[in-house]
Amino acid sequence: MRFDILAPAGFATDPAAVARAVARLSGLGHGVHLDATAESRWQRFSAPDDARLAAIGRVAADPDADVALMLRGGFGLTRIVDRIDFDAVGRSGKRWLGHSDFTAFQLAALARAGMVTYAGPMASYDFGAEQPSVFTFENCFGVLGNREWTVECALDGPSQVECSGVLWGGNLTMVAHFVGTPYLPDVSGGILFLEDVGEHPYRIERMLYQLLHAGVLARSRAVLLGAFTGYELNANDGGYDLVSAIGQIRSRVPVPVFTGLPFGHVREKLTLPVGGRCTLRSRDGIASMRLFDYAA
Amino acid sequence: MRFDILAPAGFATDPAAVARAVARLSGLGHGVHLDATAESRWQRFSAPDDARLAAIGRVAADPDADVALMLRGGFGLTRIVDRIDFDAVGRSGKRWLGHSDFTAFQLAALARAGMVTYAGPMASYDFGAEQPSVFTFENCFGVLGNREWTVECALDGPSQVECSGVLWGGNLTMVAHFVGTPYLPDVSGGILFLEDVGEHPYRIERMLYQLLHAGVLARSRAVLLGAFTGYELNANDGGYDLVSAIGQIRSRVPVPVFTGLPFGHVREKLTLPVGGRCTLRSRDGIASMRLFDYAA
Repeated sequence: MRFDILAPAGFATDPAAVARAVARLSGLGHGVHLDATAESRWQRFSAPDDARLAAIGRVAADPDADVALMLRGGFGLTRIVDRIDFDAVGRSGKRWLGHSDFTAFQLAALARAGMVTYAGPMASYDFGAEQPSVFTFENCFGVLGNREWTVECALDGPSQVECSGVLWGGNLTMVAHFVGTPYLPDVSGGILFLEDVGEHPYRIERMLYQLLHAGVLARSRAVLLGAFTGYELNANDGGYDLVSAIGQIRSRVPVPVFTGLPFGHVREKLTLPVGGRCTLRSRDGIASMRLFDYAA
Repeated sequence: MRFDILAPAGFATDPAAVARAVARLSGLGHGVHLDATAESRWQRFSAPDDARLAAIGRVAADPDADVALMLRGGFGLTRIVDRIDFDAVGRSGKRWLGHSDFTAFQLAALARAGMVTYAGPMASYDFGAEQPSVFTFENCFGVLGNREWTVECALDGPSQVECSGVLWGGNLTMVAHFVGTPYLPDVSGGILFLEDVGEHPYRIERMLYQLLHAGVLARSRAVLLGAFTGYELNANDGGYDLVSAIGQIRSRVPVPVFTGLPFGHVREKLTLPVGGRCTLRSRDGIASMRLFDYAA
């Protein structure tokens, strides 16, 4: 496969990691091309808005590219999401892969063009890690290289659940950010997965409440919570923590809420087709997720 | 006037400030009653959800109360907002006063019951300040004690604007939080005011983008930005700052955006009737805001 690495949001804060990602993908026999945005910087972004928008068009139009691999997240897609031609991007037939701020692209691609994208590893943190995760690589190439892929993992939640639906979600901040806008896909009966980083549990709970008050949780068949990392509790929390936050949400929705999905700002992450389909079977803490209907 | 002080969200982190607020309001000749939630604590809240909900009903039903004064913000109203009987609260005829997390109550009161509430000082930070602000007190009692009130202040923005509309808004996080839910009032042609604390400029920009993508900004006659305080820039910002964020939003909306409104998590704050009407006249940096149609 040929990977085009682009940075549609934040600039490359760790150029050595990008170099490692290029070497590692090449070493696995893949082609790699670095888009200009992978090596430029403007303020906290890789480049001004017009240039980041152009990068998306450039990769979509690259006849050699198979996978459009995000370099990293940060902040930036929300500035240009209303100017992306998702019909053209969808017709390009590339696999768009990333997470974090990239969730904005993924939600909008599904909402505006019914386009499937891939929530999974990025160049900087994952492919460019000093000690890359075998789990992450296996799942990524497993999903990208096959028309369906089944994952088994431990999930904490109701003792027995079986359901199927459109798989969607990503970074909780970005999902909540698009509630009430044209960029949130209108998925009914879906399986919603969520993760976040650097958000205190009360903020996580508040964002989950936005999804609850907007009806998004009740319209889901199941909610799969991944990793919520990089926050600090303090004395004013008085024992309130992530477990309290998730317990509160569970008490308010009539939908199975699972925790422990290997996804988020963590080393071991699944690759999840956003807009594909998933059959989830969970029994006594062990779940299998069959991912299908994602490949064109 | 008789003030009932309640804590519908966070617990009183500074009991001495509450005592000062009681003494100060009493010293001005007002009656003061401390609700039980002003002196209790549960986790990071004043009390469990049912008890905080009951406190709102208790103050609404208190025949002696004129003003329901929030003790402080924090996090908590989003948990109970769907269980508040805003018709009953509205019929109670009290003036509900506060800001920050209380914005959730104010937006929902306007959305569900067309009820006017007051964005302004709270017991802990404002009435209980060691050095209270004359500006804050004058404006608060000026608005509460009169059927209309005119404020003059410096506002930075377009050189000449005159418009009228429903005044609404409050804490930006809470306004963005309710986008896409039944608790965001559907105000067209309004004057929207916003403030926040502890949010990095990119988060402020991202929340403003949610209002932009949801059409809220374009439906406004003017946007008044108050104080955005308590954040830290870092090396990765590369010069991006609050001015960049506001400049970006200004470049995207066809609506006058002013900065400098004396409102937010700052000592000198206006009292603004949410759901009342405002006529804004601005010329060369000096604005007058006539607040009216708020008293029953």
